[in-house]
Amino acid sequence: MYKFSRQWVIFPLLITIALFLFINIFPRFYTAQSVRSPGKAKENVHNEFPKNDFSIVRKISSNTDDPCDTIHIGMVCSGYKAHLYFHTLLKSLFFYGVNPIHLHILTNKMSEGILGTLLRTWNVPQVNVTFYDMTKYTHEVRWIPNVHYSGIHGLLKLLFPKIISLNETDKLLVLDTDLIIVSDIYELWKLFSMFNEKQAVGIVENQSNYYLGSNVWPAIGRGFNSGVLLYKLSVLRNINWSRLWMSITKQNVLMYGTTHLADQDIINSLLKEHPDLLFEVPCVWNTQLSDHTMSYECYKDKKVKIIHWNSPKKYKVENKDGDYFRNIATGFQEYNGNLLRKKLHFCDSSTDEIESQTEEVCSEFHNFSKISWRTILYIREYKDSLFVENDVTFVAQLSYDRLQTIEDVVKSWPGPISFTLYVSDYELAKAISFISSSEILQERLNVAYHAVFKDGDYYPINTLRNIGLKNVHTPYVFLADIDFLPSKNLYEILCKYITSMGSLKKKALIVPAFEIAKYGGQIPSEKKQLLSELDDKSVIPFLSNIWAPGHSPTDYDNWKTSSEPYKVKWAVDYEPYIVVRSDVVAYDERFVGFGWNKVSHIMELEAQNYQFIVLPDVFIVHKPHTPSYDIGRFRNSATYRLCLHILKEDFIKKLNKEYNRSFAYMNVTMNSPTFRRRKRNFYQGQTTVETNTDYPVIME
Amino acid sequence: MYKFSRQWVIFPLLITIALFLFINIFPRFYTAQSVRSPGKAKENVHNEFPKNDFSIVRKISSNTDDPCDTIHIGMVCSGYKAHLYFHTLLKSLFFYGVNPIHLHILTNKMSEGILGTLLRTWNVPQVNVTFYDMTKYTHEVRWIPNVHYSGIHGLLKLLFPKIISLNETDKLLVLDTDLIIVSDIYELWKLFSMFNEKQAVGIVENQSNYYLGSNVWPAIGRGFNSGVLLYKLSVLRNINWSRLWMSITKQNVLMYGTTHLADQDIINSLLKEHPDLLFEVPCVWNTQLSDHTMSYECYKDKKVKIIHWNSPKKYKVENKDGDYFRNIATGFQEYNGNLLRKKLHFCDSSTDEIESQTEEVCSEFHNFSKISWRTILYIREYKDSLFVENDVTFVAQLSYDRLQTIEDVVKSWPGPISFTLYVSDYELAKAISFISSSEILQERLNVAYHAVFKDGDYYPINTLRNIGLKNVHTPYVFLADIDFLPSKNLYEILCKYITSMGSLKKKALIVPAFEIAKYGGQIPSEKKQLLSELDDKSVIPFLSNIWAPGHSPTDYDNWKTSSEPYKVKWAVDYEPYIVVRSDVVAYDERFVGFGWNKVSHIMELEAQNYQFIVLPDVFIVHKPHTPSYDIGRFRNSATYRLCLHILKEDFIKKLNKEYNRSFAYMNVTMNSPTFRRRKRNFYQGQTTVETNTDYPVIME
Repeated sequence: MYKFSRQWVIFPLLITIALFLFINIFPRFYTAQSVRSPGKAKENVHNEFPKNDFSIVRKISSNTDDPCDTIHIGMVCSGYKAHLYFHTLLKSLFFYGVNPIHLHILTNKMSEGILGTLLRTWNVPQVNVTFYDMTKYTHEVRWIPNVHYSGIHGLLKLLFPKIISLNETDKLLVLDTDLIIVSDIYELWKLFSMFNEKQAVGIVENQSNYYLGSNVWPAIGRGFNSGVLLYKLSVLRNINWSRLWMSITKQNVLMYGTTHLADQDIINSLLKEHPDLLFEVPCVWNTQLSDHTMSYECYKDKKVKIIHWNSPKKYKVENKDGDYFRNIATGFQEYNGNLLRKKLHFCDSSTDEIESQTEEVCSEFHNFSKISWRTILYIREYKDSLFVENDVTFVAQLSYDRLQTIEDVVKSWPGPISFTLYVSDYELAKAISFISSSEILQERLNVAYHAVFKDGDYYPINTLRNIGLKNVHTPYVFLADIDFLPSKNLYEILCKYITSMGSLKKKALIVPAFEIAKYGGQIPSEKKQLLSELDDKSVIPFLSNIWAPGHSPTDYDNWKTSSEPYKVKWAVDYEPYIVVRSDVVAYDERFVGFGWNKVSHIMELEAQNYQFIVLPDVFIVHKPHTPSYDIGRFRNSATYRLCLHILKEDFIKKLNKEYNRSFAYMNVTMNSPTFRRRKRNFYQGQTTVETNTDYPVIME
Repeated sequence: MYKFSRQWVIFPLLITIALFLFINIFPRFYTAQSVRSPGKAKENVHNEFPKNDFSIVRKISSNTDDPCDTIHIGMVCSGYKAHLYFHTLLKSLFFYGVNPIHLHILTNKMSEGILGTLLRTWNVPQVNVTFYDMTKYTHEVRWIPNVHYSGIHGLLKLLFPKIISLNETDKLLVLDTDLIIVSDIYELWKLFSMFNEKQAVGIVENQSNYYLGSNVWPAIGRGFNSGVLLYKLSVLRNINWSRLWMSITKQNVLMYGTTHLADQDIINSLLKEHPDLLFEVPCVWNTQLSDHTMSYECYKDKKVKIIHWNSPKKYKVENKDGDYFRNIATGFQEYNGNLLRKKLHFCDSSTDEIESQTEEVCSEFHNFSKISWRTILYIREYKDSLFVENDVTFVAQLSYDRLQTIEDVVKSWPGPISFTLYVSDYELAKAISFISSSEILQERLNVAYHAVFKDGDYYPINTLRNIGLKNVHTPYVFLADIDFLPSKNLYEILCKYITSMGSLKKKALIVPAFEIAKYGGQIPSEKKQLLSELDDKSVIPFLSNIWAPGHSPTDYDNWKTSSEPYKVKWAVDYEPYIVVRSDVVAYDERFVGFGWNKVSHIMELEAQNYQFIVLPDVFIVHKPHTPSYDIGRFRNSATYRLCLHILKEDFIKKLNKEYNRSFAYMNVTMNSPTFRRRKRNFYQGQTTVETNTDYPVIME
């Protein structure tokens, strides 16, 4: 042992103390200072773990991390474009995050329906939503003179502290819809725990020099960007936030005139007057991508956590790393949202069902009916036509590969249309760009497009039909298919028929269907022309050579000479295209792909004692096309036929019971050798599936 | 001021020192201890930033983070399944990471070609690769008795310390191909900096009880999993790693018999004898998903960083959170890898080119030729047929929507086939599952499938044809299209013709093409039947009614009565289906979508003075189908026609120069009003695009 002098001990000790104090107290000091030195504070967060000290990090963070802590997010969202941004934002949020989410959405009734449908059908675990009716609050911000492109949507963000009950949450992240989250949002949520008792608004510095310019509303330094906000609601209540921002707004309107950046101008001037409210959030949580952004200074050495497309150009903005960020956004646009339906089982005790090895034969088809079809209604602007008496909507569904056919339908049907698209996330983006770039389609606002996202191997034809049917705004519908061209003035003539018939209660008007029989045959648009083409057999009654029962009850011979509507009798396997009231019974969604999907619907109308009335001077003609196929359907086709058979039996039993009828269970025509042979010859062994019709398809 | 006693100072100082030492020295101590306490050490990493101390984290990490630090990754990869796993793994790696990557791949010649093509065509910035020839090294591990399903692939991982030069790198991550990376791999790379001077093998604890069982090779506790390895190469060299593992292996083979888990058994017993080599990596870096995994104990409170499908069932494994992890894997399988081609500009000074607003009219088509088509060759097992003299490969390309047509081709062509599929990442996964589930396709090993990933709006028909053509293994090819059915025994007859003609030097054998003209018409398979159908016009020469120049030089009138091959003269716009030597000139890849893609190729053969010889007793028949369309092509069609015209002119000038010919520039037939009208009538105004043929398509 040896002895050492006192200063030998005390000097290093003092250094140690200094170091320790610096390490532990500096951050607090730093945050408090940040108000006075904007532009520096944003440097102080990084979530890479350090070289030598990661045990500390782990110790501290494991105490605060709680994967079951619900994150509350406020958004203002309405309008078809915003719905699509919202969808992409949520995909990115769910991709990176694990915590339960509670969304607080300020919106109008129309958007509430659409966003509610999306969230319900998406069915992501641990995601809740509360809607708040925007129209109740707009008067509170409408008075503010504002020229920002977001209109009142931005200003409404000021109201969240007032709208949301403290019983719900004391902390709220408020996010713009034009964000992509590229990190676990829980890291942002945890910043609340770093607020001191006065801090109430967490916000990221503005990454442009806007507020350094002249004639702008006041701001601290470069100002802050309100695309991402952390509201500490209790503190905001205590200081009477609403009165505060209103009085500052009134003051500034007098001094500086109209706001150019809506809520952001207001929040900046408010923070300038009350800097103690400010908690500066690290810049990576709001990486702003306008044309002349300075965001590179932020992300050059720190990982981006949120991308903010804060330019009216949105994803089309041009800047240094534009393509990089655009690709991230595109990746989430295209990402299959259904994959986000599974979460790790942290906050519940359930486990994923492990599929049994001894599956029941038809379980695939039973499971099919359990699928929740993620749906975005009205993916484009929609406006009803001016009121037309007895108006009728053309209703049809289609997959992406038929998209180009809608132009023909839209051209020939001036009335309202409801299209339900069956698409992948990738295809939806392409479909929207197709519609936007089509001159014919973009100008028609009475065409509604609904998107249903692909799931499983079968085409959910009746689900799609029902979604289209449920979302019409006219008293009548024409239940049609996409591959038919209507005869001249079909829409106008149908409206007249409906008017002359008073009402279509328990009535179905039948529009006879035909098909082209020769390659290169012309599609007739008037009855006279059609009759002559029928004579030389270049046109024939639809499916008459391969599936006669489907349309023969229409009585084509009679039709040729009729000039008045005539009643026909229903028969087994009848599947005409009909005009009915839009409150008609829904299609049975258990019928998928091909086989009995339309037949079952018509049968139910028969069970309800509908009259079937053929119209003499209108028709539709099937355009030649290859049958479409969903590859999955090729497998187990023998099984499918068996299961379809069982399903038909179930369906008929249900009808018999419900309507006190006695339809026969067995439908002998379905698998008769005759039809089997005919079909097989049609394409010499090529196996095909026809989605829109119900004639039997033979696949071995 | 007041005075305080000495103990009042010293006591807190001592505490401070203790704390400081604990914080700074404990991690090192902990790591060294971990050898003796497996199962605990994995707890000590977490990259969430802490509640109060994130400025420390930032300070320390910013000193060690270097986005330009190249990460070296070693992999053993060969075989078509491994290539697909490799592709998915890389997508996840590039998605989360920013650092440059250098891949060191131990593989065979065939796989080197395939993986090299993938990486070259993918063209991700800052990714380099070195291939090492597996066959040079297999003898070094072949002697080890091993029953693991990975064969020698696992064992070969032991050789990296020997194979890789220290000049290249001192640190190497060795990854199995069945991993999905779900975090920035740089965090794993940085763990090397925590190795002490003796530690040389970083590895994660095994998440099953295998090594606790009896009759297993020795291991420390639960043992370690070798799916993710961190090799400190210099240390391993110094201790003579090769001699070490070989001697331990020989010892253990004598004591315990054959290895069941290949390299993993060897590494475990080696670490048991030399625990000072071990650096235990936190469990999240190798989340093992076998049927009875205990990995939940790891990921229940720490974020998963790497998913390891370490079961022969791979993605199909069944466990607690299987669906969750499977969805992540599916997400990366489906992810558009082209989106990963952009990186932030950290390590280079370039910026993304901002597209000029004043684009040249045809720039879209010029840019098209700049696209690098990400390609995976041989996505299924491929074996050449037994050697057949003068063998001929059927070469065709197709998009996903035509996939079901390949069964018909495969059935009617017993010889080798080369299909090039144009697919999205999503469609590739579906296509593979279609092929695997087709009885006809799965048993045929002489069918090669190549995948080219979609990019841009046009169908790169000639690029696809060239990829198919380049990858044939026979001296002759039949340059065909997917929508044709061959006449009976076409393959056998072609082989005979080729044999009888000696060689096809400067010769192209023409297989006449026909089409069905009536709906429901039967596809003939013998000439006699065809002639009778030609008589009643239910079959016609291909495109004869809409684009006669395409095939009329074949001289169908002569063909009807010929029994011997006959020469025909080339003419403008001729585009027959031909049999040629497989070293035939490549297609010009500037022709995309429709328009002159095959015509230009035939024209170049004419320029090279090919003889065109029509075969009298074979033919192909075009199956009826709707023209396929790529929606993007509908836009700017007038522009497209103009640019196609310019392109044709360029092409012809090139031919004239190269072959000293004088083909006329202007091709009057292309836009003649006659053809325009005919096409328009064909589908009464429906705009269509035909990918496989070159007749003019009129779109306004």
